[in-house]
Amino acid sequence: MTKIDWQDKKNLTMLADFYELTMANGYLEHGLHEKIAYFDMFFRRIPDNGGFAIMAGVEQLIEYLKNLHFSEEDIDYLREKNMFSVKFLDYLRDFKFECDVWAVKEGMPIFPREPIVKVRGPVIQAQFIETMILLTINHQSLIATKANRIVRAAAGRPVLEFGSRRAQGYDGATLGARASYIGGCDGTACTIADRDYNIPATGTMAHSWVQLFETEEEAFRTYAKTYPDNCVLLVDTYDVLKSGVPNAIKVFKEEVVEKGYRPKGVRLDSGDIAYLSKAVRKMLDEAGLEDCKIVASNSLDEYIIRELLLQDAKVDSFGVGERLITSKSEPVFGGVYKLVAVEKDESIIPKIKVSANVEKITTPGAKDLYRLYDKETGKAIADLVTMEGEKVYEDRPYELFNPLYTWKRKKVYNFKAEKILTKIFDKGKCIYESPNVDNIKRFCKEQIDTLWEEVLRFEHPHKYYVDLSYDLWKIKDDLLKEYSIEKLS
Amino acid sequence: MTKIDWQDKKNLTMLADFYELTMANGYLEHGLHEKIAYFDMFFRRIPDNGGFAIMAGVEQLIEYLKNLHFSEEDIDYLREKNMFSVKFLDYLRDFKFECDVWAVKEGMPIFPREPIVKVRGPVIQAQFIETMILLTINHQSLIATKANRIVRAAAGRPVLEFGSRRAQGYDGATLGARASYIGGCDGTACTIADRDYNIPATGTMAHSWVQLFETEEEAFRTYAKTYPDNCVLLVDTYDVLKSGVPNAIKVFKEEVVEKGYRPKGVRLDSGDIAYLSKAVRKMLDEAGLEDCKIVASNSLDEYIIRELLLQDAKVDSFGVGERLITSKSEPVFGGVYKLVAVEKDESIIPKIKVSANVEKITTPGAKDLYRLYDKETGKAIADLVTMEGEKVYEDRPYELFNPLYTWKRKKVYNFKAEKILTKIFDKGKCIYESPNVDNIKRFCKEQIDTLWEEVLRFEHPHKYYVDLSYDLWKIKDDLLKEYSIEKLS
Repeated sequence: MTKIDWQDKKNLTMLADFYELTMANGYLEHGLHEKIAYFDMFFRRIPDNGGFAIMAGVEQLIEYLKNLHFSEEDIDYLREKNMFSVKFLDYLRDFKFECDVWAVKEGMPIFPREPIVKVRGPVIQAQFIETMILLTINHQSLIATKANRIVRAAAGRPVLEFGSRRAQGYDGATLGARASYIGGCDGTACTIADRDYNIPATGTMAHSWVQLFETEEEAFRTYAKTYPDNCVLLVDTYDVLKSGVPNAIKVFKEEVVEKGYRPKGVRLDSGDIAYLSKAVRKMLDEAGLEDCKIVASNSLDEYIIRELLLQDAKVDSFGVGERLITSKSEPVFGGVYKLVAVEKDESIIPKIKVSANVEKITTPGAKDLYRLYDKETGKAIADLVTMEGEKVYEDRPYELFNPLYTWKRKKVYNFKAEKILTKIFDKGKCIYESPNVDNIKRFCKEQIDTLWEEVLRFEHPHKYYVDLSYDLWKIKDDLLKEYSIEKLS
Repeated sequence: MTKIDWQDKKNLTMLADFYELTMANGYLEHGLHEKIAYFDMFFRRIPDNGGFAIMAGVEQLIEYLKNLHFSEEDIDYLREKNMFSVKFLDYLRDFKFECDVWAVKEGMPIFPREPIVKVRGPVIQAQFIETMILLTINHQSLIATKANRIVRAAAGRPVLEFGSRRAQGYDGATLGARASYIGGCDGTACTIADRDYNIPATGTMAHSWVQLFETEEEAFRTYAKTYPDNCVLLVDTYDVLKSGVPNAIKVFKEEVVEKGYRPKGVRLDSGDIAYLSKAVRKMLDEAGLEDCKIVASNSLDEYIIRELLLQDAKVDSFGVGERLITSKSEPVFGGVYKLVAVEKDESIIPKIKVSANVEKITTPGAKDLYRLYDKETGKAIADLVTMEGEKVYEDRPYELFNPLYTWKRKKVYNFKAEKILTKIFDKGKCIYESPNVDNIKRFCKEQIDTLWEEVLRFEHPHKYYVDLSYDLWKIKDDLLKEYSIEKLS
């Protein structure tokens, strides 16, 4: 199948906060535009108080960066704002992206206060792409993280993404379906996500199908005749136990089994799923339809699914809508994009953003990010943020220490240190090919398997270590002292 | 300025739940596709327990319906699913939209359990557009409703939408900016929303601008030189009171006032806004900059803004980000789309969807929707859902009654009854031109002014009446009795 990517067709260059343009114009005006700057994207909190988040959206970020250009219409629009110099408009017309960009791979578990995207380049460019980097990664990481929680709650039962109608906009639906799949969902109801992103789409019938016919039985029969080999019936339009399931069993026998097929399932979309599913299971089994599955939908999320399964609900797969596609319990992924260093006379000058709120102080400097895995168990021990180019030797013990509470220390031995920021653009040229979405999904599962169970726990998970190397910590500490003593006294 | 609408360029026809295709194929297979059906979109709950919601998204719905067509790529994709008949694929290739569509105008306050979109047409088509109708109206109505809450909390102070970076996808940002503007925001940070939807975009500087320079003063000075006539400085990169504001005052005097301009403002993006804004106001006033505004941002919403103003915070305008663009406190607008009637032998047969949950039972029948305004005060009294074509006589008293608690009755006199469902498509042809967004915004404000203060209240607002006409209620009651007695006993 040809991939028809309508993302390619829309030029999102102008999806920028206006200040990115006023600043760019200012940099150019004062000859500062080619100053080399480093920016980090990182986040501070994991949604739903979870133990980890999942990186997603890199493929769309790459498409955006590859496409970055200003059309004549964009320039006309900006000219009419009467704020920008002719020189600046000319610069935009000839704009050519020249930054280096690194990102954590899609599907990778990520943690607070570590760089998940890193940009190095002329400040006029590196600053300009802020909004789209954040928007792209925040959105898909949010949904992939939520999907994974729901999938884990379902404990092996397939989860389907059903939320398009309640998504926040069209990309919310389509890219949300993509992110859900990466996070572990088995498919989506969203057809265009299948066409464009190869996320398997499925679907059967709405209540309106049942209502359209004189009787429920006739509605079921007509559907079964059309799809005898793939027959899932929605049994809650009138009354599940008195009408829906008896009619379904009758039609399954006469129109499906009779023709040599097996019925695929029944769907419950309302009522008490725990109670109904047990009653329905019994009815189906007694009718000899033990292999007919029960699909449940209706305002589900990880909490309700866990409760249902604790009550031994007989549900074989879940359709999850609005609470997944909007990450309803926590609909914001709070990634930020901060200047961390500039180059001057070929050396890198770290930069800090101070705040009264300790958690909001940035970590300065150009960085690398390592994940340390235990060589024996394969489990992830900690992430280590280092200075760019700093070596981490696997053949000697490494002392980790908490960057806030520096007396908290831990020596690690026998580990493998893996760089997890991958270079995706080199001087503006894309040098990375995004894996297909099935590989991303598989990679995600493998990487989550490297996390300790304690990190996977829903309530009060263990806080995974994200530590700074001593050298990086020292730079931060020195800069903090400098600002608090020299500049503010 | 030419309007460059990238919405036009993407064909969203395939943004459909897959079941809309399986059902369509089934209808065609059994010769039911031309059966005329009526669908209503309605919602059940107002987000944030508010007193009303705001209709938005009709312009984008119209664009989608105008564009509805299946490309060869779409048909190829569907053929490869091996589920659809050749006849059906041929039908899609020649697809021509033929439905009648009515919608409440954008900007209008809307209430639970009334039809806000109504579709009449061949069931194969009327069913197919379900997902896009819901997605489009749910999203923009959600954000317009939230924006209006925030704007009302700000009590006359301008509110700017700053949330693109935390939006749920690209349309979440751009159409969210549009909906925010309809709901009452004064502008956005989102540039592409200005270019494409004429939502005024503004912006100044990020912390990174300040960090890039050797000193904060130099950063401010450079900015002021570039934009002396439009100078807003971000004063919280290091320390608002010890560094940011003193530097800002110095630069305002030397680079702005000296050149004959007045400084526009300072922006606070962290810390205790109530405390800081009062201290900053004092410093600016003492420096003779009484007209210099204070802009606040940082995780604001209607609740925090009300608190700040109760504490007499000296904030002149608010920038609101993630909690607006995702409607964080309640990120789902739960609109549904239900079959309510079919035509048979030229008469309309009402259809009902029963549920154990009384609130989930649908109201059957083809309908009209009236808003009754008090002729004297101009205030909205109630909405009245009637049978299609049913007359409401303004010259005689009308007895409203609660459709659930039918003993609750109220006679209204001296009212004007306005039909608020507007026909936008006639047999597939668009017959309505969407007003420009400034007119929609103005209309929204005017219409909210017709609501009693009791409905506008944030906590426990008065529940606005949405009543059924007696004839409509009777049909519903009869159908309910029929289902509970005949079909389920």
